[in-house]
Amino acid sequence: MTLNVAVLIGSLRKDSVTRKLVHALAPLAPKGMTLKVVEIGDLPHFNADLEGDMPAPVKAFKKAIEGADAVLFATPEYNRSVPGVLKNAIDWGSRPYGKSSWNGKPAAVISQSMGALSGFGANHHLRQSLVFLNMPTMAQPEAYIANSTTLFDDKGNLAKPETKDFLSQVMAAFGQWIATHKA
Amino acid sequence: MTLNVAVLIGSLRKDSVTRKLVHALAPLAPKGMTLKVVEIGDLPHFNADLEGDMPAPVKAFKKAIEGADAVLFATPEYNRSVPGVLKNAIDWGSRPYGKSSWNGKPAAVISQSMGALSGFGANHHLRQSLVFLNMPTMAQPEAYIANSTTLFDDKGNLAKPETKDFLSQVMAAFGQWIATHKA
Amino acid sequence: MTLNVAVLIGSLRKDSVTRKLVHALAPLAPKGMTLKVVEIGDLPHFNADLEGDMPAPVKAFKKAIEGADAVLFATPEYNRSVPGVLKNAIDWGSRPYGKSSWNGKPAAVISQSMGALSGFGANHHLRQSLVFLNMPTMAQPEAYIANSTTLFDDKGNLAKPETKDFLSQVMAAFGQWIATHKA
Amino acid sequence: MTLNVAVLIGSLRKDSVTRKLVHALAPLAPKGMTLKVVEIGDLPHFNADLEGDMPAPVKAFKKAIEGADAVLFATPEYNRSVPGVLKNAIDWGSRPYGKSSWNGKPAAVISQSMGALSGFGANHHLRQSLVFLNMPTMAQPEAYIANSTTLFDDKGNLAKPETKDFLSQVMAAFGQWIATHKA
Repeated sequence: MTLNVAVLIGSLRKDSVTRKLVHALAPLAPKGMTLKVVEIGDLPHFNADLEGDMPAPVKAFKKAIEGADAVLFATPEYNRSVPGVLKNAIDWGSRPYGKSSWNGKPAAVISQSMGALSGFGANHHLRQSLVFLNMPTMAQPEAYIANSTTLFDDKGNLAKPETKDFLSQVMAAFGQWIATHKA
Repeated sequence: MTLNVAVLIGSLRKDSVTRKLVHALAPLAPKGMTLKVVEIGDLPHFNADLEGDMPAPVKAFKKAIEGADAVLFATPEYNRSVPGVLKNAIDWGSRPYGKSSWNGKPAAVISQSMGALSGFGANHHLRQSLVFLNMPTMAQPEAYIANSTTLFDDKGNLAKPETKDFLSQVMAAFGQWIATHKA
Repeated sequence: MTLNVAVLIGSLRKDSVTRKLVHALAPLAPKGMTLKVVEIGDLPHFNADLEGDMPAPVKAFKKAIEGADAVLFATPEYNRSVPGVLKNAIDWGSRPYGKSSWNGKPAAVISQSMGALSGFGANHHLRQSLVFLNMPTMAQPEAYIANSTTLFDDKGNLAKPETKDFLSQVMAAFGQWIATHKA
Repeated sequence: MTLNVAVLIGSLRKDSVTRKLVHALAPLAPKGMTLKVVEIGDLPHFNADLEGDMPAPVKAFKKAIEGADAVLFATPEYNRSVPGVLKNAIDWGSRPYGKSSWNGKPAAVISQSMGALSGFGANHHLRQSLVFLNMPTMAQPEAYIANSTTLFDDKGNLAKPETKDFLSQVMAAFGQWIATHKA
């Protein structure tokens, strides 16, 4: 089975820890699953006045989501919630009314923080949106990544076997979740 | 007493119902309170790499917030949460670390929707961020505005006395709330 | 296909509107689906000290959940969140560690209120718990029931065809959701 | 100034970590502040049918809250939310309509967990209720206590100076918060 997973990254920073985490996830994905980052930084701010004639980056974004079998949201937490830039991408993808790009796509959420709280607030605020967007979202294993800056070695690889094991389990479960929901 | 209230509007649409609501609020504010909309549409997406040399619109935005006595968030709900563009403004205002423009500013939240649910999800997701930002946020009266498109007459004025009465109460209570927290 | 759905009702009031709603749901369920209310009012307050020797009502409760194919949560909102009595039942069902009765059961949530807000807060707080409990929870159609006391005629039947139609759709979708997750 | 703070503990377990934490808080309270635990384990489940003739434990509970200057909620997290037993106490205190015992009382929230997540979900679900209950709730310092079982020595005293320092700051800030809101 081939599964194309669109990955959204909630941070635009070049050396983003979330992006490093996503890179580290790719080799841990189950056989047949491909992760492809869909960039969100060049989308304009959502404005309903632009819906009638969607800006080119929005069209490309929506097409990329629509072409994927599933969506993985990987995100830091900003101010106890979802980064604005990530929410903006979600808002664009949901429009125009009746033409949401998200509808029915299986989803998973990975949140991370440098401290203990692991992006819990971002994780669950995101999930609230995914209910509305009709995205069946994997429950367990929940993926809260604490102390994220300590997980990598100098080369950007995951330093601890237990992190790899946990993330492999997350990705394996996500593969099964997608298969369950893929007709 | 003079109270300068910065107002953030969660929608960029030109004929935004939220913006109409904010315009209708101004004459209902208690004596001495001035509402001033701070625009958020020209802020770039938040990117921590830009913190060291803030883009000009961000500098202006932060200055406007810092010059205000209090902040009123008026917002629609997008996908059961805060519009990305509004969250993005909040994210910029909170940075860089230790120089948040929000710290200690009294706040209030008004959410609205065209249907029954009144932006409840946006309202409370916003409040979760405001806890972290150390903004004492008015509890009651909570302001959930349902069926928002039906509230205005052809000239954009509030059509029903009960809407005016309710919003006058909200603004009066906010005035007292600000006074309580303003040293 | 036979589907046994355990129904939890968040209100203990004898003439509970939520209970009336559940009664009205039964004939709207798809062929083969049976709704059975599992009562929660005689459970003691959760206390981890009692886990080693579960009180009889807890044992019976857990057995009833474990015997069901799926769980429907029907609830009012108390103080912008889940009624304590319903959360208490959830807490008991989740224990002891490793022996949760909820694990893997497909779920749906219906919230209601007398006013406009439709129990939105209870609905989503509940969903946050269901993620942890590993219950795949139906996204759409979301079921927010507004103005609930106006929905019934004198005999306790649903008065409006559109309410029946909507709830029939909810139950049909739930039937499919359960089938998807029932291996 | 004398400040009587009612403390609600979200766990009924005899050796509750939350209770230990509350005991450790008492000597850290600022001068003039007294903490008094108000027990919630003997309240029946909330049932609106009982409102007309409140059960004796409910009457006593409401009286205790009404006699306090402020309320401190100290709680573990059960299933990513507020323990049912604590929510039940909140539900009783809010009734009957128009006679809430909570109205206007300044509040603070301390959440704890044995792991990293620190009861974040319980903390913020609780705060959502406190908005409705019109309880001005302290924002910063937020009190999320991680790895809670490791904080105490054999005698149940806080083992680490930094924990004491942090909790002293929380209590000092709460004292000021109460003073601000106490007319």
